[in-house]
Amino acid sequence: MPERTAVAVVGAGYAGLSAALKLHDAGEEVLVLEAADRVGGRIFTGALADGTPVDHGGQWAGPTQHRLLGLAERFGVETFPTYADGANVELWHDGAVRHFTIAGPEDGPGMDEYIRATARIDALATTVDLENPAATPNAEDLDSETAHSYFERTVPDEDARLRLALAVQGVWTVEPRDISMLHLLFYVASAGSFEQLMEVEDCAQDSRFVAGAQAPALRIAELLGERVRLGCEVTRIEQDGDAVTLETSRGAVVADRVVFALPPSAAAKVRFSPRLPDARVRWWAKSPMGDVAKIHVAYPTPFWRERGLSGEVSAYGDPAVGVVFDNSPQDASTGVLVCFVYADRLRRWAALDGAARRAEVLDLLKRVFGEDAAEPVEYVEKIWNEDAFAGGGYAANPVPGTWIEYGERGWREPVGRIHWAGTETASVWNGYMDGAISSGYRAADEVLAARG
Amino acid sequence: MPERTAVAVVGAGYAGLSAALKLHDAGEEVLVLEAADRVGGRIFTGALADGTPVDHGGQWAGPTQHRLLGLAERFGVETFPTYADGANVELWHDGAVRHFTIAGPEDGPGMDEYIRATARIDALATTVDLENPAATPNAEDLDSETAHSYFERTVPDEDARLRLALAVQGVWTVEPRDISMLHLLFYVASAGSFEQLMEVEDCAQDSRFVAGAQAPALRIAELLGERVRLGCEVTRIEQDGDAVTLETSRGAVVADRVVFALPPSAAAKVRFSPRLPDARVRWWAKSPMGDVAKIHVAYPTPFWRERGLSGEVSAYGDPAVGVVFDNSPQDASTGVLVCFVYADRLRRWAALDGAARRAEVLDLLKRVFGEDAAEPVEYVEKIWNEDAFAGGGYAANPVPGTWIEYGERGWREPVGRIHWAGTETASVWNGYMDGAISSGYRAADEVLAARG
Repeated sequence: MPERTAVAVVGAGYAGLSAALKLHDAGEEVLVLEAADRVGGRIFTGALADGTPVDHGGQWAGPTQHRLLGLAERFGVETFPTYADGANVELWHDGAVRHFTIAGPEDGPGMDEYIRATARIDALATTVDLENPAATPNAEDLDSETAHSYFERTVPDEDARLRLALAVQGVWTVEPRDISMLHLLFYVASAGSFEQLMEVEDCAQDSRFVAGAQAPALRIAELLGERVRLGCEVTRIEQDGDAVTLETSRGAVVADRVVFALPPSAAAKVRFSPRLPDARVRWWAKSPMGDVAKIHVAYPTPFWRERGLSGEVSAYGDPAVGVVFDNSPQDASTGVLVCFVYADRLRRWAALDGAARRAEVLDLLKRVFGEDAAEPVEYVEKIWNEDAFAGGGYAANPVPGTWIEYGERGWREPVGRIHWAGTETASVWNGYMDGAISSGYRAADEVLAARG
Repeated sequence: MPERTAVAVVGAGYAGLSAALKLHDAGEEVLVLEAADRVGGRIFTGALADGTPVDHGGQWAGPTQHRLLGLAERFGVETFPTYADGANVELWHDGAVRHFTIAGPEDGPGMDEYIRATARIDALATTVDLENPAATPNAEDLDSETAHSYFERTVPDEDARLRLALAVQGVWTVEPRDISMLHLLFYVASAGSFEQLMEVEDCAQDSRFVAGAQAPALRIAELLGERVRLGCEVTRIEQDGDAVTLETSRGAVVADRVVFALPPSAAAKVRFSPRLPDARVRWWAKSPMGDVAKIHVAYPTPFWRERGLSGEVSAYGDPAVGVVFDNSPQDASTGVLVCFVYADRLRRWAALDGAARRAEVLDLLKRVFGEDAAEPVEYVEKIWNEDAFAGGGYAANPVPGTWIEYGERGWREPVGRIHWAGTETASVWNGYMDGAISSGYRAADEVLAARG
């Protein structure tokens, strides 16, 4: 006999857990089915040998991410400001090193035009319809070109385009060729502004979680207890007018409603019966995951701070690592740098063997921070493209055509008894933990409305 | 106990069947596993009430498609010339109707510039590296923009761009926004020229199969007999150094080698262990299927022929149907028109109810062929996007970035004991039956070489 539950939630990332929490709060019986052996999805806190938590996945909180901060508050999970004192370092592709303390070096090549370009992007982003991006004025033109083509067309200065490319790598973990310009604008609008996406103080990288960003997820799972089932992969979902049957690696579950909260990459593996509407299938099929690895490099102390450096680095040109941040614990008991490798950089770097990958990362840190960076006490990689469940990160990025062709019907419209969550379905802070949480709440609201 | 075979072939489309045939010819033990209840994949011959065969999928053969014609000859399957006597009709978006007999109406708006643009495309296509498109000169630029952006940039005349858009719809079943310009050029080079893709006589639409295009596939299946297993869906493939285990809906199979010949849409549903290399997964993930429906409309006679019309129609603007061809049987015992609906046209049309869909198709035929077209004796639709196995058609179309990011490693490089076939992996006539067959032969050669 299959197990029965009022609502089955597929996926225990922030989207699924938030949906389950809201349903549980409302007195509904929920069962969360998670393929991995942990909750959190693309949010995953590990630890260094000395116990210092390190976030292999999403990690930051910004002041306008009310849902994320609200969850943290509810569960007593503390945050602290991201370390950002001192100078940032820019390593230009010609080897020049520049120090600066705000959005970019005033004397950096292409800075003026870069700033003008981002202002134009912000202006265009204000026209985006966040509830239905396909309804944005001029949506067809914007969704018919890649961000690369838009930059080529509107930004004559090559140095400014290099800056835009690094920004796209950092925010979307892809090259400008890989995403629709409409999606780029939607994402900017969804966060509030280009600056919100890029900056630290009062922006998306404002704060960190003392215990790591997975902590609120772990607290929700604790509250739900046995209602979260790990190592339970959903392989098939069959619905009729009365119920939904989910086949899993640990037996069948029958539910009245389903909240489906997997990333598009994982969603594509599930067989649905009857076949889902074409728009739903295609929205997933045209939204490949981004490409990202995070590397944590630990030292006895955050020695760069004493030299007036924030730890933040932007590296143009050859290095695999595009951006570095200070990821030391709040008490600075150890020094931790987090390095991001993405898109083309990741494809080249991930093909190297482990020793070569490590050598290349440390080489960059030495160039910027000196010989003290040469001998870390610990070096830890997480290559998200090789993650069995996420298959990439941070998020899925719709390619040209996706939004105008399938956005209206395929984005998050429920299909019978199945409701769609996941950060990719969020209107605000799409692609972020906050978006995942709001998507879970929205799906829970849909279920509650349907169940009366 | 799982069943054992030397080589398991996943998928009984032309790619899988051709691989199996070549292996069988070489004395290898093969087992073909097909999820559907028929062979042929995207090639599927049905019949009208009077027995006239109609091809719901791929249907034509061209004189340079040697592998397809070779198979037909081996099995004694006859072809006949596509009917193309008389005038083609062009319905322009402003309602103007023009008749012409070659590539397009000389007095058609934008024709001159369209011809120049296709000549430039042909010239660029000669630079494509068919064995490794990523190695094409200027590949990064070409793979960083959509065909839409390329046309906007290089073809000032809007009417010429409309003609190019209809060509892209007809050949790739997508809008120009949906494909990488590098892929468009690769595909042109793969067929030989733009004209080869577009035209009838001596080109890709040159001939048809008397018994339908599925006939050679059925003959192969007959020859293989019990070695073809229908209704047998492969859900999981696990390999180690010694063998490959395939879990199917009808039990497990253990093979020494596997030829995997599913389209990217279906391939994404199969679980692999160990996880496939990222390049392989991503090449699939960034190659969504095209969008197409074929509608056959039958009349007592091919009455348009008496009026000096070939039956070929190109419709610009509003109509759902983009192109019509005469698909009557060789003996003209009945009159059959085949109508193609694709891309944006398909999305709008497929959302209508059945009566509205039919009315719209007939309305177009009436506008072109007169009141005789109003009352067909039969009307049959095949919407490939709703096909449970193909999930679209004709083929998968790589989006910007796919070729340069993943082509070299992810296109068709074997992974351990698994070899990749399917028309999307062909260098010549990619996307066509001929490409499917050559891909099957190539994969079979790989297996034979590996097995010594």
